[in-house]
Amino acid sequence: MSLPEGFYARRVEEKDFEQVTETLKVLTTVGTIAPGAFSKLLKYWNESTVWNDDSDKKIMQYNPMVIVDRRTETIAATGNIIVERKIIHELALCGHIEDIAVNSKYQGQGLGKLLIDQLVAIGFSYGCYKIILDCDEKNVKFYEKCGFSSAGVEMQIRK
Amino acid sequence: MSLPEGFYARRVEEKDFEQVTETLKVLTTVGTIAPGAFSKLLKYWNESTVWNDDSDKKIMQYNPMVIVDRRTETIAATGNIIVERKIIHELALCGHIEDIAVNSKYQGQGLGKLLIDQLVAIGFSYGCYKIILDCDEKNVKFYEKCGFSSAGVEMQIRK
Ligand SMILES: CC(=O)N[C@@H]1[C@@H](O)[C@H](O)[C@@H](COP(=O)(O)O)O[C@@H]1O
Ligand SMILES: CC(=O)N[C@@H]1[C@@H](O)[C@H](O)[C@@H](COP(=O)(O)O)O[C@@H]1O
Repeated sequence: MSLPEGFYARRVEEKDFEQVTETLKVLTTVGTIAPGAFSKLLKYWNESTVWNDDSDKKIMQYNPMVIVDRRTETIAATGNIIVERKIIHELALCGHIEDIAVNSKYQGQGLGKLLIDQLVAIGFSYGCYKIILDCDEKNVKFYEKCGFSSAGVEMQIRK
Repeated sequence: MSLPEGFYARRVEEKDFEQVTETLKVLTTVGTIAPGAFSKLLKYWNESTVWNDDSDKKIMQYNPMVIVDRRTETIAATGNIIVERKIIHELALCGHIEDIAVNSKYQGQGLGKLLIDQLVAIGFSYGCYKIILDCDEKNVKFYEKCGFSSAGVEMQIRK
């Protein structure tokens, strides 16, 4: 679960605007985003916490992370884990891993797995009883290597 | 999408504690929940909003709903739609439908579909570009009747 020498993991910051939006284009359409709107999004992400009765441990609703190449400060990968407070399982927390993208220049170096390991560690440190994600059939093997197993079918409806 | 005569839909309230927790047992383990903790959960759910730059329309992060039998004030079904603000698709909103349960006494009356219709309407009224959920293979047909289609594989990791 530790990162290879040349890389470190941290939360997304304002200065990541261009690199994060660029990296996400590997995954899907990003579109045009104003830097100011990105700042407001980060402010919202940084201020949203999840209710926690048990302790004063702060649980962040959004946990946007980047894996950074230390040498060049290039963002190699990005992803998020969203935390949901439920009724079931005694008001349990469920983690949702979303928007995983590895910069094409950094693919095949195991950084995707390291990113997932970081996000899973965040979710379990909060006490999530499970962490879920949805992926294409072609990525099932990758997530199995990360310790996940198939649990069901993702269904969607679009506007 | 309108409800049959004898039923109405509304947000979960404090007085629903016993009936909602009971209804959810159809879905999975609920466990022991103190009424006071349930109240605090509802307070958190009722206070959590999603950042919205475009307008002053209030977007609720959690939208816990019940379908109520008007005659007896019995809860026939419950479910939630959680709203996530993303970077992709120009800072789009994605809806996550969670914790759908129909009271066993009310099954086979089309109330499950009416509940899903209500949750989908909430998500699209906020402007979600898509609404997703995860289900067992055996429920795929039901969600197809609700307008959903298969989109991928749900993967999970448990503590
Ligand atoms: C584990 C992971 O990263 N899953 C992503 C999901 O988080 C993302 O929101 C979606 C975007 O696809 P879309 O643009 O077709 O909605 O793709 C994948 O399902
Ligand atoms: C559409 C729907 O209602 N899906 C539910 C999900 O929301 C719930 O959290 C889970 C609980 O199962 P678990 O107790 O095994 O985690 O079951 C189903 O996947």
